[in-house]
Amino acid sequence: MNSSYRADQIKCFFAPRHIAVVGASGKNLWFRNMLDNARRARFEGSIYPVNPRADEVRGVKAYRSIADLPASTIDFAVVILKSSIVLDAVKELYGRGIKNILLVSSGYAETGEEGTKKQIQLQQYCRDHGILLMGPNCLGFMNMAENISVFTGGAVEGTFIPGAVGVVGQSGATTEIIASSLLKNSLGISLFVTTGNEAVLTVEDYMEHLVSDGQTRVILGFIEGFRNIPKLKKVALEAAKNKIPIIVIKVGRSVKAVKAASSHTGALAGNDGVLDGFFRQYGIIRVDSIEDMVETARIFTRLPLPEGNGLGICTLSGGLCGLYADLCEQYGISLPSLEDSTIKRLEQMLPDFARPDNPLDVTGSGFQSGMDTINDILMDDCNIDLLATLSIAPKDSDDVLIHAFNDMLISKFTDYSKPLVIIPFKEMTDYARSYYHENGLYFIEQPQTGLKAIAHFMKYAGFLRKFEQNNDIRG
Amino acid sequence: MNSSYRADQIKCFFAPRHIAVVGASGKNLWFRNMLDNARRARFEGSIYPVNPRADEVRGVKAYRSIADLPASTIDFAVVILKSSIVLDAVKELYGRGIKNILLVSSGYAETGEEGTKKQIQLQQYCRDHGILLMGPNCLGFMNMAENISVFTGGAVEGTFIPGAVGVVGQSGATTEIIASSLLKNSLGISLFVTTGNEAVLTVEDYMEHLVSDGQTRVILGFIEGFRNIPKLKKVALEAAKNKIPIIVIKVGRSVKAVKAASSHTGALAGNDGVLDGFFRQYGIIRVDSIEDMVETARIFTRLPLPEGNGLGICTLSGGLCGLYADLCEQYGISLPSLEDSTIKRLEQMLPDFARPDNPLDVTGSGFQSGMDTINDILMDDCNIDLLATLSIAPKDSDDVLIHAFNDMLISKFTDYSKPLVIIPFKEMTDYARSYYHENGLYFIEQPQTGLKAIAHFMKYAGFLRKFEQNNDIRG
Repeated sequence: MNSSYRADQIKCFFAPRHIAVVGASGKNLWFRNMLDNARRARFEGSIYPVNPRADEVRGVKAYRSIADLPASTIDFAVVILKSSIVLDAVKELYGRGIKNILLVSSGYAETGEEGTKKQIQLQQYCRDHGILLMGPNCLGFMNMAENISVFTGGAVEGTFIPGAVGVVGQSGATTEIIASSLLKNSLGISLFVTTGNEAVLTVEDYMEHLVSDGQTRVILGFIEGFRNIPKLKKVALEAAKNKIPIIVIKVGRSVKAVKAASSHTGALAGNDGVLDGFFRQYGIIRVDSIEDMVETARIFTRLPLPEGNGLGICTLSGGLCGLYADLCEQYGISLPSLEDSTIKRLEQMLPDFARPDNPLDVTGSGFQSGMDTINDILMDDCNIDLLATLSIAPKDSDDVLIHAFNDMLISKFTDYSKPLVIIPFKEMTDYARSYYHENGLYFIEQPQTGLKAIAHFMKYAGFLRKFEQNNDIRG
Repeated sequence: MNSSYRADQIKCFFAPRHIAVVGASGKNLWFRNMLDNARRARFEGSIYPVNPRADEVRGVKAYRSIADLPASTIDFAVVILKSSIVLDAVKELYGRGIKNILLVSSGYAETGEEGTKKQIQLQQYCRDHGILLMGPNCLGFMNMAENISVFTGGAVEGTFIPGAVGVVGQSGATTEIIASSLLKNSLGISLFVTTGNEAVLTVEDYMEHLVSDGQTRVILGFIEGFRNIPKLKKVALEAAKNKIPIIVIKVGRSVKAVKAASSHTGALAGNDGVLDGFFRQYGIIRVDSIEDMVETARIFTRLPLPEGNGLGICTLSGGLCGLYADLCEQYGISLPSLEDSTIKRLEQMLPDFARPDNPLDVTGSGFQSGMDTINDILMDDCNIDLLATLSIAPKDSDDVLIHAFNDMLISKFTDYSKPLVIIPFKEMTDYARSYYHENGLYFIEQPQTGLKAIAHFMKYAGFLRKFEQNNDIRG
């Protein structure tokens, strides 16, 4: 049922230089947002508003009709017309040789029977004529890696950062929240796509592109329903070969959510239990919230994968040891026992009454005297594959003592061959976040969200180890 | 086995005016912290360091021995001596009529057999002589409501705010993190207690005091093990009568945590499954993390209890509707269907294609034109007992349009008889947090943590309704 597209077609789709905007007007918020986002993305191509009653729209030279557009330059069209006249415009665009189209308009399958009919007609026309169409009922995309944007949403906050995280979402507003949160956490974005009703191009097509675009190292998906499971399997396999984790929020655990998805983008949510098994088998990471998604993306972009599944935790409070141990148990994280040699070395470092274990309570005096050595000892333990250790975050640049303490640790941290996570003791400031970020360190701010991310990270590493042994995904 | 104390004795214990500090020295961090915290709490009583080799310590006039202390003024002693000489000091203090003692020193049951022996001797002496002793192996307390502190920890951050949240913790550092997080969230504290090994006074004694101190409206506990279940039952019953929720982190779900608790404060973690049942029966709210604890405390201090268990959610994204519905299902929150009359009224407000449901997607145009009316309509629905509705947080004071939007909503919000939760769309700034806080509104920043807090809030309200019908807690 679903067509297949050549990789180079999709690649072109996401790299337009001359963009017609059919239905652009001074009042239209979508067009205003699109211009604004193009500027923020530092887009250097050209935009050609099409409006029957204007010579310019928002300061950009406009064309009265599609026929009036300059010959053979336009390589992409954004359509923001009423749904009743969209198909005619698409035909006209095709007549002008324009086969890459973003359809922002709503009024299709999400509105009921009439709209579904319209969507099927549109779909058929596009398939028959090899037209790649994004939407309808979506906000478009931002290709931050290549400084391109035809994104018509107005809620992505923060400076655009080109980077390694690809984002595909079936809900415009929700996916905007994900992007804002990524940028706030200094995570760069390769390509950001809102898929809408997916009349032609589907979430699986976009993910297929992300796996092979050469930029994306982590894929995030906000999914109401998959439409092409065979392609999803192929994509997941390819992603595993390239060690690119796919992290999804898949709504539809509850009856209410299934209903919401159907009236939202007309998606079928599918059998949730079956999907869960499929995700596990194919190494797709399922998270329950945007908070968890962004934290999981953070750890994958910041740290190399661990070589085994043993987490070591080092903190300065017996109470936190218990709290962390309980959370690890809840999230399925293994806290291995320490080697005898590790225990002996730690006993020499710690007060008489301390009993070295994992999680390790270094006690107040251990913290003051020898965190660098204690981290070394734990990193030497062959049962530990990833170490989560405490530090004290500097409040601001004047925080001299804390800086000295962190500087000493940082020089060590970058030497370790195993991944390391910092759990800051004390509340974090924006300064502290930048400080750790600029020093290339991954910190978790909220132990609960952070440990969940660590759990996903370690499970995925385990999945990849198995996958590489078999070079296949088996049931 | 456990003694009982008269309420007025404990009340006096927490309100000292003349405090001896036995073992105070210039080098001692505990004493430095204690002075610092007393200043931050605006303590107006007197402090009397006792040091055999000093006339003053950190600028405070010192006394060479307990015998040298001024006659009959001292009503409290802090002891920070080595454990080997503590019992003699306690005896001497008793000889001077001082029967309220905070013992900070470690080296007792948490260190093994020898320490346990020492602790039993101390316990026996205190019980035989009616001495109230907090600790050993703890950091003391802050009575913020009465501007008193003998707290020896150095990690509570932020300006002290007297308020309605009582905090009791068996781990010093962990409980300090809880306090810092409360203050950061503008939640005031009544009494803050770190209990340590609980040789004499136990966590149940402190909770008993909090339930009746006239200040505390919410009790938080970080618990490694209870020592007096009959008293805990009594306290829970009393708390229910006074509508004071008890929110606990109880570590010990995992074997690792049980081990950590034992080496930390010598506490027995107990059978976790049995405890869970007990908590449910007695309306004690169990949370898994400090994040969840503080968020749950926030909702209880900010909102009146709902009269039923129906949550209404209003947002502007179909994707978020699905995401929230799934989280509600996961946390056991009921999302009732809307009344027919509500649906009809909403249909008049929303675009043709919108299908009013709960969660409600108001769509972009609904959001722009009539959020105030939409909130009114949802609040009128008799199935909805608490409404969580979106707003846009202002970034700063210059954010004029957003301010106007919020101001319009706020005047309504304060009129509603049912509790209302704001889910801000867009990232929150410190300015936005203050803005909502100063306008008396409860907002959730992270939907996941926030919805968990709402779940606890609604379940507790349900527990209280049942409790008030029966005026009893039944198995």
